[in-house]
Amino acid sequence: MLLSTERTYHDPLHGAIALDGSDSTEALLIRLIDTPAFQRLRRVRQLGPASLTFHGAESSRFTHSLGVVAIARRAFDRLASVYPQLQHYRAVVLCAALLHDIGHGPFSHTGEEVFGSNHEHWTGRILQESAPIREALDAVSPDLFEEILQVYLKKHPLPLVWQLVSSQLDCDRLDYLMRDSYFTGASYGRIDLDRILMAMRYDPVTQQLVVARKGMTAVEHYLIVRYFMYAQVYNHPKNIAACWVLQQAFVRARELLQQGHLDADATVTAWLSGHCDRLPLDQYLAADDGVFTYHLQRWQASKDPLLADLCRRFIDRDLPKTLDVTHLPEAERQALLERVHQWLATAHGNASYYAGLQVSLSRGYTLYQRGIKCQTTKGLQELSELSPLVQTLTNPYERAWLIYPRSLESALLKTQ
Amino acid sequence: MLLSTERTYHDPLHGAIALDGSDSTEALLIRLIDTPAFQRLRRVRQLGPASLTFHGAESSRFTHSLGVVAIARRAFDRLASVYPQLQHYRAVVLCAALLHDIGHGPFSHTGEEVFGSNHEHWTGRILQESAPIREALDAVSPDLFEEILQVYLKKHPLPLVWQLVSSQLDCDRLDYLMRDSYFTGASYGRIDLDRILMAMRYDPVTQQLVVARKGMTAVEHYLIVRYFMYAQVYNHPKNIAACWVLQQAFVRARELLQQGHLDADATVTAWLSGHCDRLPLDQYLAADDGVFTYHLQRWQASKDPLLADLCRRFIDRDLPKTLDVTHLPEAERQALLERVHQWLATAHGNASYYAGLQVSLSRGYTLYQRGIKCQTTKGLQELSELSPLVQTLTNPYERAWLIYPRSLESALLKTQ
Amino acid sequence: MLLSTERTYHDPLHGAIALDGSDSTEALLIRLIDTPAFQRLRRVRQLGPASLTFHGAESSRFTHSLGVVAIARRAFDRLASVYPQLQHYRAVVLCAALLHDIGHGPFSHTGEEVFGSNHEHWTGRILQESAPIREALDAVSPDLFEEILQVYLKKHPLPLVWQLVSSQLDCDRLDYLMRDSYFTGASYGRIDLDRILMAMRYDPVTQQLVVARKGMTAVEHYLIVRYFMYAQVYNHPKNIAACWVLQQAFVRARELLQQGHLDADATVTAWLSGHCDRLPLDQYLAADDGVFTYHLQRWQASKDPLLADLCRRFIDRDLPKTLDVTHLPEAERQALLERVHQWLATAHGNASYYAGLQVSLSRGYTLYQRGIKCQTTKGLQELSELSPLVQTLTNPYERAWLIYPRSLESALLKTQ
Amino acid sequence: MLLSTERTYHDPLHGAIALDGSDSTEALLIRLIDTPAFQRLRRVRQLGPASLTFHGAESSRFTHSLGVVAIARRAFDRLASVYPQLQHYRAVVLCAALLHDIGHGPFSHTGEEVFGSNHEHWTGRILQESAPIREALDAVSPDLFEEILQVYLKKHPLPLVWQLVSSQLDCDRLDYLMRDSYFTGASYGRIDLDRILMAMRYDPVTQQLVVARKGMTAVEHYLIVRYFMYAQVYNHPKNIAACWVLQQAFVRARELLQQGHLDADATVTAWLSGHCDRLPLDQYLAADDGVFTYHLQRWQASKDPLLADLCRRFIDRDLPKTLDVTHLPEAERQALLERVHQWLATAHGNASYYAGLQVSLSRGYTLYQRGIKCQTTKGLQELSELSPLVQTLTNPYERAWLIYPRSLESALLKTQ
Repeated sequence: MLLSTERTYHDPLHGAIALDGSDSTEALLIRLIDTPAFQRLRRVRQLGPASLTFHGAESSRFTHSLGVVAIARRAFDRLASVYPQLQHYRAVVLCAALLHDIGHGPFSHTGEEVFGSNHEHWTGRILQESAPIREALDAVSPDLFEEILQVYLKKHPLPLVWQLVSSQLDCDRLDYLMRDSYFTGASYGRIDLDRILMAMRYDPVTQQLVVARKGMTAVEHYLIVRYFMYAQVYNHPKNIAACWVLQQAFVRARELLQQGHLDADATVTAWLSGHCDRLPLDQYLAADDGVFTYHLQRWQASKDPLLADLCRRFIDRDLPKTLDVTHLPEAERQALLERVHQWLATAHGNASYYAGLQVSLSRGYTLYQRGIKCQTTKGLQELSELSPLVQTLTNPYERAWLIYPRSLESALLKTQ
Repeated sequence: MLLSTERTYHDPLHGAIALDGSDSTEALLIRLIDTPAFQRLRRVRQLGPASLTFHGAESSRFTHSLGVVAIARRAFDRLASVYPQLQHYRAVVLCAALLHDIGHGPFSHTGEEVFGSNHEHWTGRILQESAPIREALDAVSPDLFEEILQVYLKKHPLPLVWQLVSSQLDCDRLDYLMRDSYFTGASYGRIDLDRILMAMRYDPVTQQLVVARKGMTAVEHYLIVRYFMYAQVYNHPKNIAACWVLQQAFVRARELLQQGHLDADATVTAWLSGHCDRLPLDQYLAADDGVFTYHLQRWQASKDPLLADLCRRFIDRDLPKTLDVTHLPEAERQALLERVHQWLATAHGNASYYAGLQVSLSRGYTLYQRGIKCQTTKGLQELSELSPLVQTLTNPYERAWLIYPRSLESALLKTQ
Repeated sequence: MLLSTERTYHDPLHGAIALDGSDSTEALLIRLIDTPAFQRLRRVRQLGPASLTFHGAESSRFTHSLGVVAIARRAFDRLASVYPQLQHYRAVVLCAALLHDIGHGPFSHTGEEVFGSNHEHWTGRILQESAPIREALDAVSPDLFEEILQVYLKKHPLPLVWQLVSSQLDCDRLDYLMRDSYFTGASYGRIDLDRILMAMRYDPVTQQLVVARKGMTAVEHYLIVRYFMYAQVYNHPKNIAACWVLQQAFVRARELLQQGHLDADATVTAWLSGHCDRLPLDQYLAADDGVFTYHLQRWQASKDPLLADLCRRFIDRDLPKTLDVTHLPEAERQALLERVHQWLATAHGNASYYAGLQVSLSRGYTLYQRGIKCQTTKGLQELSELSPLVQTLTNPYERAWLIYPRSLESALLKTQ
Repeated sequence: MLLSTERTYHDPLHGAIALDGSDSTEALLIRLIDTPAFQRLRRVRQLGPASLTFHGAESSRFTHSLGVVAIARRAFDRLASVYPQLQHYRAVVLCAALLHDIGHGPFSHTGEEVFGSNHEHWTGRILQESAPIREALDAVSPDLFEEILQVYLKKHPLPLVWQLVSSQLDCDRLDYLMRDSYFTGASYGRIDLDRILMAMRYDPVTQQLVVARKGMTAVEHYLIVRYFMYAQVYNHPKNIAACWVLQQAFVRARELLQQGHLDADATVTAWLSGHCDRLPLDQYLAADDGVFTYHLQRWQASKDPLLADLCRRFIDRDLPKTLDVTHLPEAERQALLERVHQWLATAHGNASYYAGLQVSLSRGYTLYQRGIKCQTTKGLQELSELSPLVQTLTNPYERAWLIYPRSLESALLKTQ
């Protein structure tokens, strides 16, 4: 039978992602995918609680990770067909692409804020400590895991290698923009993947990833699109409100735990007890969206009415409202919050869990991490110097939201 | 501010689904969506464990239910614009569309086989017993909940009403084919929704849903496409294998429970203890994919090595293999299974949990439920009499699979 | 600069189709595309006058031909990666795919009926007689053009080679179904290209293209979809009516030419004078949709009122009506036409140009051309024996339409 | 039979566009579509010769015009459901949307440069002088045509009315971005139509179209996307080169005509003889892409070798090269051109037809035409003051290209 060692993943975005088991690198990818640590990503949603705002946003880090390796393979193989000396780096690029999110925990980025964990720290530890992964990598080359870690630290000696995985123009971002756009239905995120991949070049002098002049527009467009996905999806006020409630529930749970009043299993107890980046590997890997959601559901029946209420609000999607206070100076924002807290203290007693300020400060493009270089007749030039739109994206962009309960009298929110 | 009572759900398939809170029916839909029982559908996946086979199949019954009501509204409003007397039935059609899956429990249809539950039974009970839902319905009309139940029983006096929600050509199927196709990436399921909706007619004589002759092809196509989705996605052998492992894990868990050796919370204990359709409503609604998946994860550390192993296989997606035995007569299938069981009994001791036969028998189209009637110059005619392809679909279609462990010596599977 | 010899065609269906000028076969494709004979396909629409019925159906044979070569390259390169001995045939497969429609003339298939031309005859002559094409082929190999002709005659010694280009499962059909579906907006034509390509196998014993068992469903689906595109798009009654009017206009033009009363340029005069397959090559290539449409526009001012009227009807899309008479026996169809002709003779004088019968007889699948063979545990089996739906498609399928003027009294069309 | 007066256009972008003949406005739309002047738009491509660069860009102004009316109807009906007093303007909005491009002539915008025609002038004349259109409009209301003209002049007393058809945020642009993106395959143009339509508001005080704050991002995105379509598609250097060749061919044809040496029919002769905006209506309407392409084909055999060569280059897509000279000051650009012209004068004799400078100066957003106003807590605010990206788009954006023959020695193009 032909092609019997082939493994195929049918992806709604990239079509059939076929891994060829007769190729040593792709056989390694198959082996890595089959590890429990990687399968666990099926239980970690890409966008944490965002599906409460965009109901289609239910897909997992598992599907995204397959997408990243699919894009990375297309990008890399194209470059390596022109520069055969790159061939040597195929395993490190593809493995780093596949595993780049393996350290993510419950609720992804939202979880990092909630629990104080750091997914990059855990990616490193999993690569080093997880036997099935480490053995698979070591079987191919004893240096491979070390090289992959260098990629994540942006210290791999060949800049191209880490740039494909983690830079201002990497395969991670290309996939998540396409994917989040596809699943949320926000057409903002449609990028021109073919044109971007065709524009990618390897500059043998500086050994970095650069962009051909004729593909510059597709890359500009990708950066703009990313800005819009942040503005409209990731930082949607309803999503910020949902994350806020989630955070408050765990703040309360942690308080109860310290008081010895929390009913939780060993995993959750360990996660909430101390600094979660110091957990044993097994404890870390035992957690996922489902484990914590399970506890939130159970805690709806907690004897602590505050925890029960916060959990119920998250589980039943009974979310607070938001008011855009971006235009207010910091002092006025605080004064407003103070007013709301006073009202809450009188009306409910538990002010701080039910109202707060959330500020997001972002840049659509930064020059650190080498920026993005374009090939021009004058040599390599920084994209933001060529493109006024990208230049605009380098400005920091602040949004601020007051989160407050639906029951609040609207007169309290008057500002001038 | 304009349109302030509008609620919008952005759907990747249907675009913006805007519900107008100033319309009494749509305000009711909003209220129903906001109930805990409906929000719970976010935690029940549309296709149970199918994402182990098609990684994109991670979407929930919640998203599907919104899609069904979106299609039902388009279909109904179009018909009612021609037959204003239908307007009276708008609330019952749209509520029945929205709530048609509210009775689904953990792992959807797979769960029904695993736990012996019946989602239609529970849809009825939830409508009757769930206070937030019942009160919302009663507030609009005291007969509404009764009418909705009639829809699900296909006994509503106006056949059109139940046909839009549950028939060979209903809005449920239209949405799930589109949606499952979109998320799995299987292009088989693309139907021509616009042409189908434009072909739908109301026949005032028989009061039923019929199809205009010129839209017949679009409807034929939809039926064929459904057949293909069953053949290729829902009954994919890998999916059958995944469901099998899930089932075996719960078979074992139930045995341990009877022996008093199962570690489970109150909800899971209740579900596995007796006939789950006799559970109290709260116990039923407390369960979802997450609650059971949580237990499967925990049971990986069970003292019972069999349960631990079965759970690990499901959680880590370490699935058995399948052999197509459709062409074998029943006796040969059993003989083959016997051989495998004997080998297993010798090699592992636990034969029945690791090998089995799964047979699916389906029809792509049936005449019960009134079939589908087309308008022709000779009056209404049954679609299967007009279309040779649909006629072909009326034949029962059997597929049979032997499920066996990867470790099995392949010589044992030789058949002639 | 990297990749400077690359030529890229951005295609809405296949994305970036990049031809690598440093590869001798792909350099040949570029050279062939740049010939006047191939560029001429930009002026021949894929579906003739179908855009009068489906307004999006405006795309050309040029775009389709690029699509076919894109698919053929994917299919072939995949097979050749497993069977390197196939590599030898890459040029013949890709050139045959690119050039398969180069013989098409004005209005594509509709034009063949109108003018009595045969596009396959002309494909052969262009390959032999067109200097730019012949020289390009000969420069690579003196036998190449002969081999390509063998492909079109299904006589190439390696059956796989012609099967990829012209069989029941060829790259031509795969592209046109996808493309016509995309441009007409008829979702019927969505096929699962990835799964079909992955299912294609080379059988080294019989040297033919076969289908892996696990991809059989995708192939069944493709055949069904093709049937639907014929039923709903290509044979749409309005399209049949438009073709009919076009045909009548040229029937009349030919009559006037024979009487020495037609005003036409040398190209059109030559086409209408005799057997158009005996035209000199230059005369044939000088014609396209535009040349004939130009004449139709001009003839609206013809002194012959009949020609003027027929041309006006086509140009202004003032089309006759159609009545489905499929269910009538031949004698009744003729009697009906007779009645209409009599009415027309009285009312207008020119009966035959304004009413007629059009019968289409087709099969969705035929066994000639070797059918489609599937790999099964019992060896190669014919698809129609494995699939009841495909079996159904082998039955001939007749549709018959009466074409009649809008002005006709409807009472005349009563049948029982 | 139900809905028998319905006319449906199946559109690949908007799905089924159903016009209801029992509604007086939609019946008028049907009547207008059926006029010869409107059907003529089938023979005018949306993007002129752009299909020589993007092969999928073959669609016509006809398909676009249907799309604009489909969007306008959605936008208008939504606003009118909230402000019933707007209902009175439905006919003028929809007719103006449908007919907004009816004045376009051969090669659309490219043709305007080539022939010195003005499509807006002709839209006005067609509305006034074309009997079938004028009669259709007058039959509904004697003032209607006058009102439609006011829309195109942006002088309609209710600003909303003209803004929906012709402004910085109009239904014309919404459709062409979506459509050109769909057909060219450039994913840049995907806009979020649903979100934009939902963001559109009517401001009863100023009577204008404004944007709700929460939809501002979707509108920003649309403006950016439009900029990208200009940068990458409409002003693609290869497209500029194709338009240049077309222009030169007609420059030469006009010279020959003045010398009495051009072989052309009455229509083309009239178009090239004087100021083409003074043509009689019939002469104007007799022209389209096909008529002029027909002449270009015929002129390949002209006795004038220059005309023959220019036509051959356009027809066979043998296009000149382009050099980006945007960064050069005007004097250097001219010096470069001078050098090329000198070389050409020596080598070929006909310098000016084969090399030139093309400069495009555009703004992605302008404040004239009232800009776009957003609803904010501080009242209506100009979008460009709220959005840094839109602010960036207000800067003029110049691109300059040197067009030169492929045969040119590349050393001549050296600049520093």
